[in-house]
Amino acid sequence: MTESDRLFLDDLASAAQAVETCLEGLLSPVCRVDEIARPDRLLNAMRHGVLNGGKRMRPYLVLESARLCGGDPQAALRIAAALECIHCYSLVHDDLPAMDDDDLRRGKPTVHIAYDEATAILAGDSLLTLAFDIAAAPETPLSGDARASLVCALARAAGIGGMAGGQALDLAAEITPPDEAGIVTLQAMKTGALIRFACEAGALIAGSDQSTRASLRRYGEVIGRAFQIADDLLDITSDAASLGKATGKDEGRGKGTLVGLRGVNWARDELARLVAEAESLLSAFGDRGEKLKAAARFVANRKS
Amino acid sequence: MTESDRLFLDDLASAAQAVETCLEGLLSPVCRVDEIARPDRLLNAMRHGVLNGGKRMRPYLVLESARLCGGDPQAALRIAAALECIHCYSLVHDDLPAMDDDDLRRGKPTVHIAYDEATAILAGDSLLTLAFDIAAAPETPLSGDARASLVCALARAAGIGGMAGGQALDLAAEITPPDEAGIVTLQAMKTGALIRFACEAGALIAGSDQSTRASLRRYGEVIGRAFQIADDLLDITSDAASLGKATGKDEGRGKGTLVGLRGVNWARDELARLVAEAESLLSAFGDRGEKLKAAARFVANRKS
Repeated sequence: MTESDRLFLDDLASAAQAVETCLEGLLSPVCRVDEIARPDRLLNAMRHGVLNGGKRMRPYLVLESARLCGGDPQAALRIAAALECIHCYSLVHDDLPAMDDDDLRRGKPTVHIAYDEATAILAGDSLLTLAFDIAAAPETPLSGDARASLVCALARAAGIGGMAGGQALDLAAEITPPDEAGIVTLQAMKTGALIRFACEAGALIAGSDQSTRASLRRYGEVIGRAFQIADDLLDITSDAASLGKATGKDEGRGKGTLVGLRGVNWARDELARLVAEAESLLSAFGDRGEKLKAAARFVANRKS
Repeated sequence: MTESDRLFLDDLASAAQAVETCLEGLLSPVCRVDEIARPDRLLNAMRHGVLNGGKRMRPYLVLESARLCGGDPQAALRIAAALECIHCYSLVHDDLPAMDDDDLRRGKPTVHIAYDEATAILAGDSLLTLAFDIAAAPETPLSGDARASLVCALARAAGIGGMAGGQALDLAAEITPPDEAGIVTLQAMKTGALIRFACEAGALIAGSDQSTRASLRRYGEVIGRAFQIADDLLDITSDAASLGKATGKDEGRGKGTLVGLRGVNWARDELARLVAEAESLLSAFGDRGEKLKAAARFVANRKS
């Protein structure tokens, strides 16, 4: 492990702590303006789905891309929390019996197991809704234009043209295995879109120029792809104990992955190529880009 | 039926037509900026859930409250469409087997029957997400501040402190029947919050003063309450054929309603009182308030 990798892991841990504190405040029992009541059971189910000790990779990318662009750190923290609410809602809904039917997530009962199915549906709905509340609210210290842009970009990354559409393609892939182009589209939508948003968000928060935004956007696409290939590799090479969830499942269900189609050696080469592209996209930022370079290496090489 | 009632029904029908056309455009197969693809089956399920010939009462209230305040009609139409996406997502999810388990909605198969349960979950999620995209996008001709305010108000009306929280209370009411105060809170959240937003939205779109906003907000609360009492009355007095959905169901499940607790005569008196209050709240607008007065009468007296 290099020195910059070690620094990256420290930064990731402190970003996770900051986001956890922010989410804890946003998911308190206290009503906000225009809210009538926050029913206990639903609030607790939302907390179960979010305050679960994840790595908080997406929030980290928002915070670090904003820092790189000189964006307001408090605004970045709230956008990071909003994004994490969306990521976690998607896990709550994906785990439902009608979807992936998972009982465990990070070694703990999933929301529909800890509560019930109806509450899990509503907890996911409420987390998704809360994300847009957080991003749009005046407590996010940005201009109205910037808040509206972030809401719109986040919605498109999460909706039919992004993550939710990708999940629909994933369901279809259980019946008709997609070809390679189909897998690339599926993964760009299901996991890529939110990661791309996380990286682009820094430029939106800071009001950066188009060229900076385009570089971060492309960086996000590249590490999103690396993230998915690393995930598919892990699915083949690791075991249930170290991941805390069922593995070998995607292949068992007949869903193709790029690693399945092209093999493990191709995947390792592709990860190296993607890391190099990510690093090259950050070269314009000089030394300030070192942390996102380390993030790209971490995403490609992660072991869990 | 009075002349103003007839005019109201004409207006309601033409508002429904305008909103239908707007929604049709928003749910076209064409990707927007930042979208990767719009998978057919998911898009068709969303369309099934939204383009279903509803009365479009909430959109009407947005359009008419905006007209009353002098707000931009195109902005009002988009906010109306966004609100209808949220109303329709809630119907799609409420109909799921884990929730109310309904096979029919307005005489047609519900989304999880016409498609499948996973697709219905994703269609609801995607409609909810699309609503915030529509409100926040630059195509909504309002300042960034106004778009962000509308997103925030809409999210709070729809989320844990509003509609979704009300649905959670409704689930709890199947196990422990609430007292009268509990029923009032449940209904203010489950159906009241979106109706209140619809009426307040006109003032937000037009950038009206606080007093105008407060009057419309209170008007929205009053007709929201009337809407629910009328619904509970219909549930007791009408039959399945005229409503196109199962009736007598809420009582059968032991959920209390105000009409069940206080009786049909109390309900009719209360509706008259609420209509009078709604009319009085509109008096400051002079003749321009006639249409929303007719809307209050329609909501209280509707037969389906």
